[in-house]
Amino acid sequence: MTRSELIAQIHLKNSFLCVGLDPDLTKIPKHLLQLEDPVFEFNKAIIDATKEYCVAYKPNTAFYEALGVKGWISLEKTINYIPKDCFIIADAKRGDIGNTSLAYAKAFFETLPCDAITVAPYMGADSVLPFYTYKDTWVVLLALTSNTGSADFQLLEVNNQTLYAEVVKKAITWGNDANTMFVVGATRGKEIAELRKLAPSHFFLVPGVGAQGGSLEEVFNYGANKEVGLLVNSSRAILYAEDGEGFADGAKKEALKIQTEMAMYLQRLR
Amino acid sequence: MTRSELIAQIHLKNSFLCVGLDPDLTKIPKHLLQLEDPVFEFNKAIIDATKEYCVAYKPNTAFYEALGVKGWISLEKTINYIPKDCFIIADAKRGDIGNTSLAYAKAFFETLPCDAITVAPYMGADSVLPFYTYKDTWVVLLALTSNTGSADFQLLEVNNQTLYAEVVKKAITWGNDANTMFVVGATRGKEIAELRKLAPSHFFLVPGVGAQGGSLEEVFNYGANKEVGLLVNSSRAILYAEDGEGFADGAKKEALKIQTEMAMYLQRLR
Repeated sequence: MTRSELIAQIHLKNSFLCVGLDPDLTKIPKHLLQLEDPVFEFNKAIIDATKEYCVAYKPNTAFYEALGVKGWISLEKTINYIPKDCFIIADAKRGDIGNTSLAYAKAFFETLPCDAITVAPYMGADSVLPFYTYKDTWVVLLALTSNTGSADFQLLEVNNQTLYAEVVKKAITWGNDANTMFVVGATRGKEIAELRKLAPSHFFLVPGVGAQGGSLEEVFNYGANKEVGLLVNSSRAILYAEDGEGFADGAKKEALKIQTEMAMYLQRLR
Repeated sequence: MTRSELIAQIHLKNSFLCVGLDPDLTKIPKHLLQLEDPVFEFNKAIIDATKEYCVAYKPNTAFYEALGVKGWISLEKTINYIPKDCFIIADAKRGDIGNTSLAYAKAFFETLPCDAITVAPYMGADSVLPFYTYKDTWVVLLALTSNTGSADFQLLEVNNQTLYAEVVKKAITWGNDANTMFVVGATRGKEIAELRKLAPSHFFLVPGVGAQGGSLEEVFNYGANKEVGLLVNSSRAILYAEDGEGFADGAKKEALKIQTEMAMYLQRLR
């Protein structure tokens, strides 16, 4: 999906919500566990319930890999089930030397038809550039994450700035605002504003709203640009809003609630 | 596999060779492509040919994921085929927030019975610690990689030292020398010596010998400790030593050549 198509979807749906598809067998409703592919059935119901209210889905590969081959079958079915007008982010946090990153690009842009993949920056330019081989696909580079461990390295000072700012400064020279996004944790309003200055036109993928404690309004105030420039992710708050038979209804209500709030903020851009 | 078992294997086989299992369909011999699972058949022949001369195997997940579900089937078969006396490293370069890293740990320590997984440090302590949940398993943390992109962030100065040194200094407090190794690129002799001072008893996994241009003798001189403390990886130089029907013989010869050189250096420790 191209940048202009994504922006059009955001305005069409009045939403910049991304739903994280992180199915955990210990948390999904018990009645699904008897089915042949509980993970796919769970995702399918969640997608059906939320697709009007979100513009993107983000399956995190860890939850599928934990189930081995069966998990990859569920992942493949899930990605193929997501409607074509939704942006798909493989939350895989990959990154390796050149020819190996190219194999990852093939895995998530060709074998699985995703629009974007999250990438870890530690190995530098030649570990990221191979992901730009495919057309109309995106690198979503980790910049500032929302976990406490982000303080260990991301917040350290290098070249008179934080490491995460250095990552963003370098990475905007590797790609452009039509093929690169940054992961920016929602628990840090001021840092979002700082990164918005460094990358005025890039999209930010913001996790950490909801279960991880970030405020959507703060994210919007600090992070939005005139073309929105934000995808805000919610996983657990939507997926596990309700247990039992009503889980999809619960997810729908929660997604609608977030979308309604987003619609309010989007009006401010007009 | 425990640290003492690994060291015993090294002395038994007179080898600290790790064979990278990075099967690339465009490079493996043509006659294998007609078989039902060319990737597994290739790996099986490579393992049979090299198992006397190496102590570890390191499948890089990228080459399997590029093939989707079929690739994960090949990966599972490969890992189950590796002899029990060999150390298995899932070269996956994972790392995510806590509960997600735990799912990755399950994927590679429980669903797939690997001994170790490579992990990227960018997200900090709480992205690495969940990998220590399993018994007798290892984190192999990226410190200094052998690609040119390592200069982008790893070589930057933080707290009056390089970022990769900071990674090693912090990580030795997260685990210990019986559950943590570091990836240290073989193209950098001096840096190996520097890291050996910071982590005197930890194992280093050293890629970059052979195809990437590092010298085995230099790695040994700078990196060995009294319990060896090194696993040196070779992938392409062994896997693609010969094309056609003789590929396994070519791999065997190349592995034997490296093991013979290693045996010579190991004598110096006695």
